[in-house]
This record gives sequence, structure tokens and C-alpha cells, in this order.
Amino acid sequence: MNRVRRPDLLDKVMSAQDAALLIEDGMTVGMSGFTRAGEAKAVPQALAERARMQPLQITLMTGASLGNDLDKQLTEAGVLARRMPFQVDSTLRKAINEGQVMFIDQHLSETVEQLRNHQLKLPDIAVIEAVAITEQGHIVPTTSVGNSASFAVFAKRIIVEINMAHNPNLEGLHDIYIPTYRPTRTPIPLVEVEQRIGSNAIVIDPAKIAAIVITNQPDSPSTVLPPDAETQGIADHLINFFKAEVDAGRMTNELGPLQAGIGSIANAVMCGLIDSPFENLSMYSEVLQDSTFDLIDAGKLRFASGSSITLSGRRNADVFDNLDRYKQKLVLRPQEISNHPEVVRRLGIIGINTALEFDIYGNVNSTHVGGTRMMNGIGGSGDFARNAHLAIFVTKSIAKAGAISSVVPMVSHVDHTEHDVDILVTEQGLADLRGLAPRERARTIIENCVHPDFRAPLLDYFERACAKGGHTPHLLREAMSWHINLEECGRMLAS
Amino acid sequence: MNRVRRPDLLDKVMSAQDAALLIEDGMTVGMSGFTRAGEAKAVPQALAERARMQPLQITLMTGASLGNDLDKQLTEAGVLARRMPFQVDSTLRKAINEGQVMFIDQHLSETVEQLRNHQLKLPDIAVIEAVAITEQGHIVPTTSVGNSASFAVFAKRIIVEINMAHNPNLEGLHDIYIPTYRPTRTPIPLVEVEQRIGSNAIVIDPAKIAAIVITNQPDSPSTVLPPDAETQGIADHLINFFKAEVDAGRMTNELGPLQAGIGSIANAVMCGLIDSPFENLSMYSEVLQDSTFDLIDAGKLRFASGSSITLSGRRNADVFDNLDRYKQKLVLRPQEISNHPEVVRRLGIIGINTALEFDIYGNVNSTHVGGTRMMNGIGGSGDFARNAHLAIFVTKSIAKAGAISSVVPMVSHVDHTEHDVDILVTEQGLADLRGLAPRERARTIIENCVHPDFRAPLLDYFERACAKGGHTPHLLREAMSWHINLEECGRMLAS
Repeated sequence: MNRVRRPDLLDKVMSAQDAALLIEDGMTVGMSGFTRAGEAKAVPQALAERARMQPLQITLMTGASLGNDLDKQLTEAGVLARRMPFQVDSTLRKAINEGQVMFIDQHLSETVEQLRNHQLKLPDIAVIEAVAITEQGHIVPTTSVGNSASFAVFAKRIIVEINMAHNPNLEGLHDIYIPTYRPTRTPIPLVEVEQRIGSNAIVIDPAKIAAIVITNQPDSPSTVLPPDAETQGIADHLINFFKAEVDAGRMTNELGPLQAGIGSIANAVMCGLIDSPFENLSMYSEVLQDSTFDLIDAGKLRFASGSSITLSGRRNADVFDNLDRYKQKLVLRPQEISNHPEVVRRLGIIGINTALEFDIYGNVNSTHVGGTRMMNGIGGSGDFARNAHLAIFVTKSIAKAGAISSVVPMVSHVDHTEHDVDILVTEQGLADLRGLAPRERARTIIENCVHPDFRAPLLDYFERACAKGGHTPHLLREAMSWHINLEECGRMLAS
Repeated sequence: MNRVRRPDLLDKVMSAQDAALLIEDGMTVGMSGFTRAGEAKAVPQALAERARMQPLQITLMTGASLGNDLDKQLTEAGVLARRMPFQVDSTLRKAINEGQVMFIDQHLSETVEQLRNHQLKLPDIAVIEAVAITEQGHIVPTTSVGNSASFAVFAKRIIVEINMAHNPNLEGLHDIYIPTYRPTRTPIPLVEVEQRIGSNAIVIDPAKIAAIVITNQPDSPSTVLPPDAETQGIADHLINFFKAEVDAGRMTNELGPLQAGIGSIANAVMCGLIDSPFENLSMYSEVLQDSTFDLIDAGKLRFASGSSITLSGRRNADVFDNLDRYKQKLVLRPQEISNHPEVVRRLGIIGINTALEFDIYGNVNSTHVGGTRMMNGIGGSGDFARNAHLAIFVTKSIAKAGAISSVVPMVSHVDHTEHDVDILVTEQGLADLRGLAPRERARTIIENCVHPDFRAPLLDYFERACAKGGHTPHLLREAMSWHINLEECGRMLAS
């Protein structure tokens, strides 16, 4: 078969069940998979099945979230002792919040850096989905690169899942670059979005390939929702802001390289660019979603760099069956490179990420409901926001039919400090916080981003706090009162 | 005179009062000065004098803090409408906390990046202290580089203060590199601590030099306190940790390039390395304090890169009168380069910074007393902590004779999130948080870092929060209660 092009490896082909036996209780396992794309599928499934009979616990590292309900199955089977660096599964989320699974929520660029420097235990074994193994025994990833390359380099043994459901033409799409080791590390040579700096496949010693499993199961479709009135409103505010930036001479009509977080709001914002006056756009992002391909089709986007391609059911067949149409405009990189602070700062990225809530001073909570319960994880938002040319956070101004304001006196958990937040956008409007002191930020945010139902109470809080003084005025007895009300009465404000 | 080596500039020599007249009401002014080193002295003094007669307000940008009570004088004279990116003056601090001066607290690597990209208003005028102006009309800084180079490049006009009190032998110590502009920016070529990548002087068009003022006033001495039992305890815990890292093969006996924040605790920790088994150390830091030179004298430190030299009265004459002894082992860079995320990540820096307080999950407050009142500013701590090989924060476990615990249920302000904090140290012990989930971090911190008087109450809070659940368990009604007690009763815990 031309999917395994090194004949001496053919005798490593085995069932997923047999391959899964290589994974032993207590091991650390690094698996492919980034935002429901390109995850190993059969081996973790077999592992979950086995664990239902025979108790087995592992530390599981991936690129980001997995599809095909794998985190659910692994959680239900009790396989996950520790999990990093990101997840989106509701069953796993519950186990994390109950303290049953130890979840290490990480900046997505940092996991393999910490492994490389032995700050984390190296994976004993890597399980990597591939479209092919080359003549040299190198691994060609599928719809994501994520942390797969470094996992394969670090692990003593590698299980490769060759997934026949993926178009073999994915080969050539990837650019695998791994930074050199400290103390002799050299600059990452990437200076343009479209630049290729690495190899087409993951270079490993083929003797480490301990098993090859043939699979035929597609990625799960993304769960992105179509734009609605609020997300359209957010997109409109942002496009008007970009126009003003161009008019002021701070950006060209090509804007800067765009990064968009996972999810419906960021996707809707990107879709909004289709009917914008901007041209010849580029993306330097983590996940390439539907909007990336809509923008390419509209002739707006000249190139997109990411770490995965995660599409809805609507878009999936269309893109992957017509890959030739897109291939010259795409590259998939390791998430360490797609998210690397060095590259983000150099390229001057416009980072658009979703906030769960933000406060009147512009601190952003991306992860913790009520300050305690993990939703998904910080993902790459910190990698981008800290070093972006423009760090933009978007959210709808209210949630749960108005029971919740997304703008609060003090966030219940901080993922991005005021220092790393330039622009906040809700459907109500846009707050440009650049160069403003906290008291100025507060007035700008309250005037522009807050839902009318919450504007007067927030202004009242702010003014009473100012009367007490401080660079960042707060009333500690009230700062969390909106969250406490929500927890105890189901609404942030008594009606 | 050989301090102004371009004869056509000699007719620009004038009094500080005359030079200060170039600064008009409403202007943005960029001045030299970084942690009480190398600030322009006579012109801001003249400006303050003038403003006492005739109202005048400016936006003042510097490298970091100023010495010689300049921020005090400027504040008292009402000159400061806006101030960035850092300060340490008690009079200015009070004005900031009363909302009279708009203070923009920034990551120190970011100010000139935001100027370069026109996110902030460019300085109309730069005031730069120098030891000399070269034959080419370029400016040789004194004891700090800070943001001086970029301020001089951006400003339409430059006032140079030639300070005769500085040893002219400072010339040759500086390495001025300015990143190229986006979208064609190239990697910062620095790959070793001792590498020189720029010029010895600030390259500008000499026609921009509008005034030269001759001064003769030394830098203020640093206010660093000598080590005490607690800071020695912190140093001991950290050195034992480094030994264990070396034993585990995660570092060599040279450790990594060291960064130490400003102040007595970080300075004491560095002094502790004098009697350690580590050899051939290097620093890649912002401020070179007394400890840097003590380590060089002890034969422990082979090279130190910084953005300023800030010494105590004890050390000042000794170092600057014997500069030849140290010059080959030192370089001063722009703070954009000394603190650049790209370089910090590449070199694998061990960053040691001081926390005001941290919480049981390892979030760090570096700036805000009681969540509201600004102390100094975040400084470079974020530049280093985010990308460091090891992000270490140190503090004494209690303050105000035990009225305050430096470890609290929830910090009242977040400057560094749990993601960016690897190691916490107090005189009680060291918490190694690498690879731990929040609940594990809490137990490690409570066991190792908390003063015995506060250990049981913190553990009680944590366990009751865990019973309620969540990835990061908290009781919102109690999370800030220690700070509220302190504010209302003068103690975090009722005795």
C-alpha cells in the first residue's frame, strides 16, 4: 500500500486492540489531535474498552481537544488520571470540576517547550494519526499537526494510525519545524505567513514505530453555529474599527495577519470580513475554520497558516474533496510554531479571541464559570493576546436571556490581564483601550460594551469605587457580588 | 570638549531653563531613565520650576522609574497629566491612586513597540542623558538605555543632557539594537547573553538635536536593603532547588541566564549565589544591582546583560571608578531587547521576581495593594515570567508583623496568572508547581510557603471550597474576606 511506503514497517500493522496493549497503567501518552481534527481514533477507543474490564490510568497529552467523543469515552472508562493542555468535552469537564481528573490548563505553545526542558514527564508512547508513512519512515500527519511532532520525537515508542478516510493529498500541506535545544537555540526563521521552514513529515527514527493501525473514520464536524444578529453586530463594530485604523494610517488595507480563536463568535467575525473593503488578507492562526475557506472562496484571503483544519459538516467534503483548490494557500504547523510568542510578536498579528466575561478595567476571564468551574481551557488565547499587534476580545454583552452580564465589576478569574487587552467588542459596541489608564478604561468599557440593563449599575459601582480611591478602584465587599447573586439567585442583579 | 565631538552642535549648548522651554503644554515627552539610573536631570527639574509659575501638563514616558526625586517634583508642580510605563515615587503614587495622574502600567518591553506601531502617541520631544555625542552626532547613553534609543528615533526634537558626573568610560558599554519594522521584521539575532548586535550609540539625525545641556549630578543611589534572615531563607530554599535541578539533569552547574527583579528580596537571592556551588553564571536581566558586581567579584558571574546599572551608595563609586575591571563583562541594551519575549524564550531564562501576594492556586499580584492601590507597576516581571524557563516569584510569607499573609485565598489583583508561575518561594519553603493541576498547586503552596499562623485557615478555606467543587475551587463569599478584614480591621484574620 502507498500509505506505508517503507516495506519493513508493514509487519508492524496490527489491530487497535493489540496496539493499545503497548499502553500500560501509569504511562504518559502523547496523542495527536487539535480542536477535533486529526486525533488518533482507534487506539484510544480500544484503550477505553480495555479499561472497562481492567483498571488503567494514564496521563494524556494532546494538541488540544479531541473529536469522536474520545475524551468522553476515556473519562467514562476511568482512563484519565491527568489531562493536558486543553479539552472541550462535557463529560471530561464534569470530571475535572469534580476533581476526579487532574487537568493542567496550558498556553498551547508551551506544552512541548516544557517537555523539551524536562519540566514535565516525557511521553512514554505517542499515538499519531497519519495519512502516510514515507519511504524514510517519517510520519505525515492528517488534518492537524498540534503537538504530534514533538510527542513522536520525545516518545520511546510510536503507534501510527493510518486513517484511510483522509485524502492522501493532505501530504505536502504540513511544515514541521522543531526549535533547536537551549542553550544553543537559534531564531525561528519564519518571517512571513506563507513561509515554509521545516519538513513535510515528522522526522523520527522508524525503529521507534512499534505499531501501525489502519483506520477509516472521519474527524468529527465542528460545532460552530451560524452568525446571528449579535455576532453580526460584533463583526460590524470590528470592521468599522479596522476601517478607522486604515484611515488613520496605522494599518494597510491588507490589515495584519489574522488569528481567530475557536468557536462561533470568532468564526462569525471572520465571516464578516467577506463583505468588507479589505483585500489580500492573511491568517496566522491555530484553527482554520469554515470562515477561512469562505474567505478564500470570496477571493479575500491570500494565505492561511494554522495548526489544524476543523470544519462543519457543510464544509468538510467540499474542502477535502477539492483540496487542490486550496492547497497552495494553506500550511499546517506544529502548535508551538503557530502560537509561538516570537513569531506572533514579529508578524504583528491581529488576535481575535472569545471572552467568557471581562471586567470594567479590561481583565478577561476565558475559562472559569463563576471563578471555579472550568469550561475548556485558555488554549492559545494567551499566546496570541500577549504579543499581538492588536489583542481583541469579543463576547455577547449578556447571556442566559439577560440573567448574566458579560461585563462585571471584577472578573471571577483572570486569564488575560488588562496589560494584554487592547480592544473589547460586544454587539453593543467597541472599546478601544490603547494607552488608557484604568479609570479611563472603565468609562470606555461601560459606555461602549455593556448591555443597557447593566450600564447604570456598573457605572454606579465604578463611581462609588472611585470615591474610595485607588489606581484601579474597587469595592472589595461588592466586587464579586454579581457572581454571588448569580450563584445564589440565578441572576446577577436582583430584578 | 570631547563630550560633544561634533563641533557644529556646540552652539546648541544652553541652560536647562532654555532647553525646557522647548517643552510645551500638552506635549508628549520621552525621557531617559530606568530604575533610578541615567535619567535626564536638569531639564525635568527646570520644567517643574517653570510649571510652578505657569501651568503646564505633559504626558511623560520614561524607561522605568526616575531618581533624584524627579517624579516627586514633577507631580508636585502638576506637570504630569499622564505617566508611563513604571514609577516608584511615593508622591506620584499618591497622585495616581487619587486619580490625578493617569498612569499606564505596561510590560516594559512593550512601550516602544506600541509607539512604533502608532498605538500610542509618539513623543514630540526626547530628553536623553548622555556621556557624549559622537563625531557622527550619535548619542552615547549613561547608566541606562531604557527606552532612550526609540524615544530619540521617534521624537521630532531631542534635548541631550551631557552629565559630567558620569565616567566617560561608560562609552562602549551599550549595545543599541532596534527591531526592524513590520511587516518585514526579521528575527532579533541575539542568541547568547554576551552577544553584541547593535551600535555603541543611539543613531539619529544630529539635526534633531535641539539643545544640549551640561549637567553634573550623580544618579540617586538604590534603596536596596541588605539581606536579612527571611531573604536569606528564601535564597537558601532557591539554591537547594537549583541543586536538585542540576542533580536531576535539568540544568547544568552554570544554571541558565538569570534575571532578577528590582528590590531587596531579589537582590538578596542573587547575593545568596555567592556561596553556592554554581559556577560561570550569566545574567540576562533589566537592572544590574549590587549583587551583580558582588557575583563578578566573587568570580561566580561571567557576564551580565541589563538595561541599567543601579547601585547603592556603598557600591557606586567602587564600580564606576573602576569600570575597566567590569566593562568586558557587561552590556546595557534597550529594555525592549533586555526584556523581549523572543529572546527570553530563546535563551531559557530563570526569572526571579518579587510578588506582593499570591494565592493558593499560584496567581500573583505584583502591583495592587488591596486590589486597588498601585505600588509601582508590573515592570518587566511579565516579560520574563511568561516566557522564562523557570518563572520564580519570591516574597516573605507575612508582612506588617503578621497582620498580613502574603498567601491569600484569592489575590485581589492578578498580574501573573497561574499559567505563568512555576515556582513560589517564601522563607517558609518552596512550592514547585510545574505540571500540577490547581488542587495540587493549592496543597503544595499551603504546605510549603504559608506562615504557620495562616496555614490552618488557608487549608480550611481550600477544603471547604473543594467540597463545593470546581477546577479551581473558591468560595466567592469568602475569597476576598482576608483583604476586607485587613481594610476594615487592620488584620487579615481576627485574632
